Amino acid sequence: MLREDAQQIIDAAIKAALPDTAVKKALLGETFSDGRLLLISIGKAGWSMAKAACDILGDRIDDGIVITKYDHSMGTIPRIRCYEAGHPVPDENSFAATEQAISLVHGLTEQDTVLLLLSGGGSALFEKPLISKEELEDVTNQLLASGAGIVEMNTIRKRLSAVKGGKFAKLCEPARVYSIVLSDIIGDPLDMIASGPAYPDSSTCKQALDIIQKYNIRISKDVEELLHRETPDALSNVSTKVTGSVTQLCQAAELACKELGYEPVTLTASLSCEAREAGSFLGSIARYYTDSSKSLAFIAGGETVVHLKGNGKGGRNQELALSSAICIDGLPDTAIFSVGSDGTDGPTDAAGGYVNGDTRKALHQKGIDLSKMLDNNDAYHALMACDGLIITGPTGTNVNDLSVLLIKR
Amino acid sequence: MLREDAQQIIDAAIKAALPDTAVKKALLGETFSDGRLLLISIGKAGWSMAKAACDILGDRIDDGIVITKYDHSMGTIPRIRCYEAGHPVPDENSFAATEQAISLVHGLTEQDTVLLLLSGGGSALFEKPLISKEELEDVTNQLLASGAGIVEMNTIRKRLSAVKGGKFAKLCEPARVYSIVLSDIIGDPLDMIASGPAYPDSSTCKQALDIIQKYNIRISKDVEELLHRETPDALSNVSTKVTGSVTQLCQAAELACKELGYEPVTLTASLSCEAREAGSFLGSIARYYTDSSKSLAFIAGGETVVHLKGNGKGGRNQELALSSAICIDGLPDTAIFSVGSDGTDGPTDAAGGYVNGDTRKALHQKGIDLSKMLDNNDAYHALMACDGLIITGPTGTNVNDLSVLLIKR
Repeated sequence: MLREDAQQIIDAAIKAALPDTAVKKALLGETFSDGRLLLISIGKAGWSMAKAACDILGDRIDDGIVITKYDHSMGTIPRIRCYEAGHPVPDENSFAATEQAISLVHGLTEQDTVLLLLSGGGSALFEKPLISKEELEDVTNQLLASGAGIVEMNTIRKRLSAVKGGKFAKLCEPARVYSIVLSDIIGDPLDMIASGPAYPDSSTCKQALDIIQKYNIRISKDVEELLHRETPDALSNVSTKVTGSVTQLCQAAELACKELGYEPVTLTASLSCEAREAGSFLGSIARYYTDSSKSLAFIAGGETVVHLKGNGKGGRNQELALSSAICIDGLPDTAIFSVGSDGTDGPTDAAGGYVNGDTRKALHQKGIDLSKMLDNNDAYHALMACDGLIITGPTGTNVNDLSVLLIKR
Repeated sequence: MLREDAQQIIDAAIKAALPDTAVKKALLGETFSDGRLLLISIGKAGWSMAKAACDILGDRIDDGIVITKYDHSMGTIPRIRCYEAGHPVPDENSFAATEQAISLVHGLTEQDTVLLLLSGGGSALFEKPLISKEELEDVTNQLLASGAGIVEMNTIRKRLSAVKGGKFAKLCEPARVYSIVLSDIIGDPLDMIASGPAYPDSSTCKQALDIIQKYNIRISKDVEELLHRETPDALSNVSTKVTGSVTQLCQAAELACKELGYEPVTLTASLSCEAREAGSFLGSIARYYTDSSKSLAFIAGGETVVHLKGNGKGGRNQELALSSAICIDGLPDTAIFSVGSDGTDGPTDAAGGYVNGDTRKALHQKGIDLSKMLDNNDAYHALMACDGLIITGPTGTNVNDLSVLLIKR
C-alpha cells in the first residue's frame, strides 16, 4: 500500500514538472499586448516547451524559433522553425540558429512581445561570440586550467558573448520579453540557466578584470576591450517566471501526499549533501515519529552527490534509499523513496529506489548484506533483490530529484 | 540576538538533561509501596543520580549503594555506601561492589522496592561473571577478533553474567524494581545501557549457540552449559522510565524555542550521519524557508560522526556547524548551532559551534577559506576566528548532541 502511495506521489510530481505542464501552468491567465508575439525557445526541452506554448496560444503566435539539441525535435510546429545544434560544446549550427533568433527580434516595437522559453543546455545552444571561436576556446581553456570557479568563468564569458548576461533582452528592446524558465539547477539561479540571456547581470568590469589578473590569463586587446564593457545590471523590459523547477516537484508531491491522507512537511528543495548521509538523516527522522498518530510525509527535493568507493551499479537516488533502510529497519508502515525526475538515476535503467522497514531483513534472508552492498556502491542490485527499484523510463523532464519519507497510520 | 537565543536554548536543554534534573523529573509524583525502599545507582552518573533521588526521597530510602567510576563520587550521601570501580574494564572493585548490591536485594518481600538508577558505563561497573575472569576474557577476545557485532557480543555476555540481561531484576524478586535510566545511547536501547540488568532479554539460547558456531569460538563445558540457560524474556516486577536522554534534550530545546517565539519542529533524536553532511542538510532546510513569515526552529538530536581526513582541531558539533555555514551563506536572520550536551566537543575546550548567514563572508574577509578549513577538519580555528565557538565547560551530563537551525522573523 505504501508502495502504491509512493508511485502515485512520483507520478504526480513528475507530471507537474514536465515541460508542457510547466509551460501551460506559467501561461495560465497571461495576456500579451496587441503587437506581434514572437516565440523563442532554447534548451534541451526547447521543442516540448514551444509545443506547449503553441498548443495554448495557437495562431496568436506570429513567428518563432526553437533551438534544441540534436535529435530533440519531435516534429513540426505550425509557424515555428526548429533548429538543432551542438551541446555541450556550441557549434556552427548553434551560432547560425542564434543569428536567426537575433534577426527575428530586430526592429520590434513597444507593442511587441518576445516569449522566451529557456531550459537547461541553453548556454551552448544559444551563443554569438564577440571574438573568434579560437580565441574564446583559448580563454575558456586557460580559465579551466587555472581552477577558476563557475561564477568566475561566467563573469568573463558573459562579456565575450552578444546574447548572454541579459544582452539578448537588450537586443529585443523596445519589445517586452516574457521569459519562462524551466530550471534544472538547484536554487534556480536565473543568471546561470542558458547563461541568463534575459536576466540582469550583477557582475562588474572590475570583477572581470580582477579575475584575469588573479589567474594570470593571457588575453588579446579585443578581449580586454570587451571586459571593459558593462553588462546590463537592470532590464526594464523583462518579466520572468520560473516553472517546473524542483520546487514545483516538491509542491506537487506535497499535494499528492495530502490527497493520500499524509500531513506533508517539505524540508528543502536544495538538498545537496552525500546521498547515503541524506538517507541516514531521513531515516533518523522516521525513528523520531514512530509513535506518531498521524500519517506523515517528509519531502526533500534537490540533488545529492555520491563519492564512489566501490565498483557496483547504482545512482544517487538508489543509494539514498538503500542507506535509509538501515535507519528504518524494523519500523512498521514506514517507507523512504528517492527518484530522479528525468527517470534515469546514474548509469542504470531505474529512476530511483524504494525501501521500507522490512528491506534490511528481506535482503538478509536472501544472504545479502545491505551495508556491504552500500559500501560497494551497488544499490541497484540490492534494490533489485528486494523489489525496490523504481522504473519510470525517460520522463521528458529534468528538474533534479525527489526524496520522500512516508509514515502511514 | 540570534546568538543570545542560541545560548538560552542550549542552557535550557542541558539543564533538563542534567542527572539530578532528570532523576527529579522521573520521580515526580511517584509513590512506592510501604515496604523497604533500597537504592542502587550504577554508572558514570551514579553519584549525581543517587544524590538527586536522596534529596527528594530523604529518609524514605532505607539503604543504598552507588557504584561509579573512580573519582566520580562527590562526597557522602546519608544512608548510601559509595563504591568506585574500574571502567571501561571491570576490576575487582566492580565485582566486590556488585556482590554488595546483590546482598542488599537478597530476601526482600513483595512490599519492598528497589530503586535502580542506571547510567552509561554500568556494563563494566556492575558485573558478576559466572565463569572465571580469565575465561570471560578469552571468550570476549575471540569474539572481538572474529568480527562479531555488538549485539552478538551481548547475546553471549549476558549469559555469562549473573546480573546482566535482566538477571539482576530476577535476584530482586519478589520485590518491585523501579528503574530510572539516564540514556546516553541513541535510540535508548534499554538492553544495552549498563547491559540491561533489569530489562528483559529477547535473545535466545539458539541464537547464542549459533554465534559460537558461526565464528568458531572455542568454549569450555562450563560456558557451553551457561549458553543453554535462557535469560528472562519477561520481567513482571520491573517498571522502567527513561529520563535525561537526547529526547529530553530535544524536548527542552523545543520548549525554550517556543518561549523565544520560534515555532519548533523536532526532526529527530537519533541523528547519526556524517557531521558535515548533517550540516549541509540543515542548511538546505534553511534555504527552503527563506521566505517564511514565521520564526522557525528545526531541532535535531543525536550524535553525528566525523571521518578525519585532515589534521586540524575540532569536533563533530563544530564541524556540523561550520559545514552548514556554506549552505546558509547570505541568508539574513538565520543561524545554525550544534553542541555536545557534555560540554566537550572532540579534543577541544569548546562544546560546539555557532554560525550564521554572515559567517562565510566574515571568514573570507579575514583571509580564511571555510571549505579548506573544513577539509582539514579544523573547524575549531575557523569558528574561533568568527567568534563561533560555544564554550560551556563540563556540564555534568552526557546525553549526546543538540543541533538547531533558527530562522528569526
